[in-house]
Amino acid sequence: MPLIVTGSIGIDSVHTPTGTAEDVLGGSCVYFAAAASFFGPVRVVGAVGDDFPDHFLEVFQHFKIGLNGLERRMGSKTFRWRGKYHENMNIRETLEVDLNVLGEAQPPVPDEYRDSRYVFLANTHPAAQLELLDNFPDRALAAADTMDLWIETERPTLLELLKRVDGLVLNDAEALMLTERTNLVRAAEAILQMGPRFVVIKKGEHGAMLWHTHGQVVLPAFPARDVIDPTGAGDSFAGGMMGYLAATGDLSLAGLGRSLAYGTMTASFNIEAFSLDRLKQVSRGDLDTRLTEYAAMLDIGESIEAASGSVV
Amino acid sequence: MPLIVTGSIGIDSVHTPTGTAEDVLGGSCVYFAAAASFFGPVRVVGAVGDDFPDHFLEVFQHFKIGLNGLERRMGSKTFRWRGKYHENMNIRETLEVDLNVLGEAQPPVPDEYRDSRYVFLANTHPAAQLELLDNFPDRALAAADTMDLWIETERPTLLELLKRVDGLVLNDAEALMLTERTNLVRAAEAILQMGPRFVVIKKGEHGAMLWHTHGQVVLPAFPARDVIDPTGAGDSFAGGMMGYLAATGDLSLAGLGRSLAYGTMTASFNIEAFSLDRLKQVSRGDLDTRLTEYAAMLDIGESIEAASGSVV
Repeated sequence: MPLIVTGSIGIDSVHTPTGTAEDVLGGSCVYFAAAASFFGPVRVVGAVGDDFPDHFLEVFQHFKIGLNGLERRMGSKTFRWRGKYHENMNIRETLEVDLNVLGEAQPPVPDEYRDSRYVFLANTHPAAQLELLDNFPDRALAAADTMDLWIETERPTLLELLKRVDGLVLNDAEALMLTERTNLVRAAEAILQMGPRFVVIKKGEHGAMLWHTHGQVVLPAFPARDVIDPTGAGDSFAGGMMGYLAATGDLSLAGLGRSLAYGTMTASFNIEAFSLDRLKQVSRGDLDTRLTEYAAMLDIGESIEAASGSVV
Repeated sequence: MPLIVTGSIGIDSVHTPTGTAEDVLGGSCVYFAAAASFFGPVRVVGAVGDDFPDHFLEVFQHFKIGLNGLERRMGSKTFRWRGKYHENMNIRETLEVDLNVLGEAQPPVPDEYRDSRYVFLANTHPAAQLELLDNFPDRALAAADTMDLWIETERPTLLELLKRVDGLVLNDAEALMLTERTNLVRAAEAILQMGPRFVVIKKGEHGAMLWHTHGQVVLPAFPARDVIDPTGAGDSFAGGMMGYLAATGDLSLAGLGRSLAYGTMTASFNIEAFSLDRLKQVSRGDLDTRLTEYAAMLDIGESIEAASGSVV
């Protein structure tokens, strides 16, 4: 079923302990859409400026991302972010941010996209997210991301949004901040009281958990040997998850579990290179191969009787 | 098959954001043995002083822990530890530590314990661990724990120990320190090069991973709503794990996975109260019930075809 994502498209400069990437393609919308594209077609709504390089469009084409919702706004500049990761890749510092076109009016949603059934509102001002949501009257599932800035400064609007989406996807620190709790289980429970039917709490290298009134999913991250650039990990996680859900329509708990596992896979590949470089080399088959490896790592045995040969 | 643990038996005083426990039973050996006792008989070798309260022995009896290796040394004092946990229960501060009897000669291993097949050397000086190991010529599996102090000050002896044990159990910070790596996968690989056939890296609230040349297990922690006192979480994890392995003799990868899952369960109960208070209320049936709940949280679905009714 048609999946659409609204969010940022940016030009990033990233410094990590292993290297630097200058002026590369980034933005929540882009990472999400690339990851979701492994499961089926994906549409984006976003704006860039007249400085947006033509060769970035080839990346969209590579992932077969629908471009009718991409507005190239003359006289405006593309969103830019410069960040730095420390030795511990969990800590990131924003060195420079220029909102540019993100600070202007939102791009319109093309009429032919109004039939989108799966909607992901990537992180932006919650008022903008609310406005976008109204463009999709036939939606089967809408989920949103958010960030600390909006939790602090736009809480009433964010709470309004939470009453209108099916799912919220956010990181652990944001979940604690939003709910003023110190425990993630209690935070997840409190978020369900705010409206969404499920919440996904992303814990970076420590995995993710999904809380739903009917059950929970708790998964570790895929153990990474080489983390080159964590930028976009959360967005490619959400993309893999929503891409799987949109492609299968499987909203059972097992389906949600599998969607989180696929999100874990797309994120695990994404962090192996700067920008979209690793995802560009990957196929759906690669995701499935790694998923098989991952499932084996989660195998806690069916019963004592299932015991087989010794490896120790 | 007979399981034995050597390590500390202590009198703890613990301060957490939710309360304080003064002069309660603690020590790595005690938490380990209590957790292991759910799966079968467990023997301990350890020493206490003449200040060790009689009523603590009732706790050993409750868990049916063999006491022939418990030496009550007249004229000596029991190991004491006073610690404090901060709002984030991951951070702990040692306020006071008195080695007392732990700083004296080790208690002897009773002759009738020399046939122990499963051996766990809880954290102590690696020279003492090496000496203890020689008491168990028929061992099928020996694993050891260690800590930052020995990694810093007794590295050559610790490396000697690692050549002689089958498994090492330690926490994430210790694994990075031991191997001088910044990535846990690389640290685990480096530890396997040091001798053990498997290494278990404990990540506290973020779960645990087992690395073996033949495969890996990566599990999240059981999501805890109420953490009252994390003291002994790592030891009760190791106890559940080794207790399961000793009881089943299942050293397949699936068996190791299930042993980690049981360790996750015993640790998850242990942190729900001070000292051994919660484990005292728990039965093997409670562990199995929670394991079923936990396994459901790890369910990532067998295939798209397995999809069932929608919950979202």
